[in-house]
Amino acid sequence: MRSTAPVIDLPRLQRLLEGVNAFGFNAVTGGYNRTGYSPEDMAVRDWFAAQMREDGLAVSRDGVNNLFGRYGPAEGACVMAGSHLDTVPEGGAFDGSLGVCVALECVRALRDAGIEPRTAIVVVATAEEEGRFGGMLGSQTIAGVVDPGWLDRASDSDGVQLTDAMAAQGLDAQDALASAWPKGSIRAFLELHIEQGPVLERQAIPIGIVEGISGVCNLQVRYEGTANHSGTTPMEMRADAFAGLAAFAAGIPEILGASGVPGTSRITIGKVEIHPNFPHTIPGVAEFLINIRDTSEAVMRALRAACLERIEATAQAHGLAHTVAEKSWLSPVTLDPDLRETMRAEADRLGYKALVMPSGAGHDAQTMQSLCPSGMIFIPSRAGISHAPEEWSDWADIEKGAQLMLNTLTRLSTG
Amino acid sequence: MRSTAPVIDLPRLQRLLEGVNAFGFNAVTGGYNRTGYSPEDMAVRDWFAAQMREDGLAVSRDGVNNLFGRYGPAEGACVMAGSHLDTVPEGGAFDGSLGVCVALECVRALRDAGIEPRTAIVVVATAEEEGRFGGMLGSQTIAGVVDPGWLDRASDSDGVQLTDAMAAQGLDAQDALASAWPKGSIRAFLELHIEQGPVLERQAIPIGIVEGISGVCNLQVRYEGTANHSGTTPMEMRADAFAGLAAFAAGIPEILGASGVPGTSRITIGKVEIHPNFPHTIPGVAEFLINIRDTSEAVMRALRAACLERIEATAQAHGLAHTVAEKSWLSPVTLDPDLRETMRAEADRLGYKALVMPSGAGHDAQTMQSLCPSGMIFIPSRAGISHAPEEWSDWADIEKGAQLMLNTLTRLSTG
Repeated sequence: MRSTAPVIDLPRLQRLLEGVNAFGFNAVTGGYNRTGYSPEDMAVRDWFAAQMREDGLAVSRDGVNNLFGRYGPAEGACVMAGSHLDTVPEGGAFDGSLGVCVALECVRALRDAGIEPRTAIVVVATAEEEGRFGGMLGSQTIAGVVDPGWLDRASDSDGVQLTDAMAAQGLDAQDALASAWPKGSIRAFLELHIEQGPVLERQAIPIGIVEGISGVCNLQVRYEGTANHSGTTPMEMRADAFAGLAAFAAGIPEILGASGVPGTSRITIGKVEIHPNFPHTIPGVAEFLINIRDTSEAVMRALRAACLERIEATAQAHGLAHTVAEKSWLSPVTLDPDLRETMRAEADRLGYKALVMPSGAGHDAQTMQSLCPSGMIFIPSRAGISHAPEEWSDWADIEKGAQLMLNTLTRLSTG
Repeated sequence: MRSTAPVIDLPRLQRLLEGVNAFGFNAVTGGYNRTGYSPEDMAVRDWFAAQMREDGLAVSRDGVNNLFGRYGPAEGACVMAGSHLDTVPEGGAFDGSLGVCVALECVRALRDAGIEPRTAIVVVATAEEEGRFGGMLGSQTIAGVVDPGWLDRASDSDGVQLTDAMAAQGLDAQDALASAWPKGSIRAFLELHIEQGPVLERQAIPIGIVEGISGVCNLQVRYEGTANHSGTTPMEMRADAFAGLAAFAAGIPEILGASGVPGTSRITIGKVEIHPNFPHTIPGVAEFLINIRDTSEAVMRALRAACLERIEATAQAHGLAHTVAEKSWLSPVTLDPDLRETMRAEADRLGYKALVMPSGAGHDAQTMQSLCPSGMIFIPSRAGISHAPEEWSDWADIEKGAQLMLNTLTRLSTG
C-alpha cells in the first residue's frame, strides 16, 4: 500500500467525540458528568477501548484505569498522545475528551494513509485529571510521581476516600505505585487541549503552542482592625479591615508592573470574607486569598515578595494586625523546547498562525514533562469559557489543531 | 425651706441605674436585654414608675408606653428630660438607661435643694428607641410624626409585627396617633447619652455638646463583570468586579478630601458580597453598600454625587456593568443653637471642658427637635464601644454630665 500525506477526517473526529459525550450528559443542564471513578467515567473507557480495538490498536489499562491503545511496533519506546476522559461536575464537551479523540483520529489517519510508524504511537486516556481527589492521579501514575501516603489520605469534596471510590470500581489505589512507565519508554508526550482562556480567540489565532504551565501560589491574608459604629467613629480614628484590603487590592496593578511580566503574570483576589459584614459597622476583620501565577519561578518569587511587603505596609498604614499563611506553592513547569520548535515548524508548514503562550491552567503534560519531553497544542475557547456547559470550540480550529497534532506525530513516529 | 445650689448625688444615681439594670441582665454574656415591648421592657417601666411615684412625681403613660413623671406645676408647658429604657439584644448598661436615670436624679437633687420649678420638669423614658421595629416609635409618637401606615407594616427581624408585639402587652399601636404632644407644650427637650464613639475619650474631654445628628444615606452598588479562571485569563482581558470595588473603596479618602468636612463626614463600606467567591475564579459580581454620613445636607449631597461619579468611572475603567440603588436617605438634624449655647455656658461655669460635636448615631433628640428646641449632652464611652456588654463610661464623667444636665434644667425651669 502506497502512503500519502495523512489528513484528519473531521466528520469522523466529530462522531468519535459525540460517542464519548453520550456518556454522562445531563439533558437538563447541558453539562457532562464523568467525574473520576464514577460509573460514567468507567463506562466511557470501556466504550473507547472497544473503539481502539476495532481500529486494531493493542489496548491495555493500568492500576488506576489509565487506558492505552498502541499502534505500531509492539516493542520499544513509544510516542504517547492523548488527554483525559473525566470531567468536572457539569463540565463541557471538549475539556480533555477532545484531546483523546484527536489522538485516536491521528492514528486512524495514519492508517488510512498507509503509514506504519517506526516508533509506536500510544493513544492515552488518562484517569482522574480533573482533581476530584486533588491530584492528577493518571499522569502522576505514568510518570511515577505518586506519593504513597497521599493515596490513603486523598478524599473528594463530599468526603469520599479515593481508596473507597476506586475499590467500588474494582481498583486498588496502591496499584498506582506499580504502574509507572520506565524512563526512556516514552520518547515524547503530546496533548491537544482547549485553551480555557480568551487569548487565542481575542487575537483570532487558531493554534497555541504551550511553552510552559504557570505555577500557582496561594497566600491567605487576615487583616484585623476594630469593628465600630460607622456613624460614631471618625475616619481618622478607624482601623477598617476592609479599607486595608481595598488599598492592597487596588495596588495589584502596581505590583505586577514592578515585579511581573506583562501578559503572563497574574494576581487575583477571588475569595473575600469580611466580619461582621453589617452595613452600619466598620469591618473589624477582612480575610482574603491572593492567587499568584507565572511561568517563571523567579518571577513568582518576586511577586510573592512584593505582595508580602505590600500586605505589611498596608496593615501599618491602616492600623491593622495581620497574618499571612502560604496555603500552596506549585512551581511552574517549562515544557520541552525542542518539541515546541517542532510543532511551530509544522504549523508554519501547514500555514497556520500559531502563538507560543503559557498555560494558566494545569494539564497532564506538566506531570509527563517530569518523565519525558512533553508538548501541548491549544485551540481557542469561545469567550474563554470552560468547566461549564457553555464551553465551545469551533470545528474549523479543531481541524487545524488536529492536523498539527497529526503532522507532528507523523514526524516523531516515522523520523 | 431655703434653697441651695442643687448637686448630683452620685451614689444615689448609681443605685438607680443598678435598679434599672436588674431587668433583662444575662449573667452568662454580661449583656442587657430589654428590647422594645419585651416583658423585661414592660417590667422595668413599672419599676421606674414606682420610683418616680415615691419621689412625688405625677406619673403617666401614653398609648405606646412612653413613661412620664412630672415634677412642678401640674399645668402649663414643661421642660422634658430623659432618654430610653429599651436596649438592643445583649446591649450595654448605659445606652439610654443612663439618660433616664440622670433626669430623675436631677429632679431628686432639685427637691433636696428645696427648689420648686416655675416650669414643670417632665422626666421621660421613651419607648422603642432602639429600632427593633425600624423606627423610634416613642419620640415619634410624642412629636406627632408617626406614619399610620407604617404602624401596620412594621415588623422586627424575626418577622414579628409591631401591632402583635404591642397587643401582647395590652397596647394598641394605633393609639400612637392620639398620643402626640401639642406644639408649645414642651419648651425644651434635653437628653444625656453616652457618646458611643471614641472622640471624647481620645481627647480626654468629659463633656460633648451635640450640635446635630448626622444624616445617613445608603447606596447599594452592584458591579458585574465576568467570572473567569484566574489562571487562563490575562490581566488585561479581565472584567474583575472585586478589582472594581477595591479601586472604588481605595478612592474614598480622596472623595472625602474633595467633598467632605474633616472630622465630620464619614463614608463606610461595611457590607460586601462577591460571587462566586472561589479562590481561583475572577469575581464576576461584587455587591456592596456605601454608608454616607454628615451633619450638613449640602455636604451629604456633595458626597453622594462624588460617590456616584466615582462608581461610574470605576465601572468604565474596569469594564463592568453597574447598578446603584439608594436604599435610604435620612436628612441630618441640627439641634437647637440656643440650648447648645446655654449648655456650653453652664459647662464653662462648672469648669468642665466641653466639645461641641456631631452625633453619628441617631437619638430621640433628633425626633423631638421637630416638635421643640432640643439639646443633647454626651459623656465619653470607653474605647468607643456600645451596643455590647463591654460598653462602659467612667462615673467621674457621668457625674460631670449629670451636673451639667442639672444646672441646665435648673436654669430652664426656674428662669
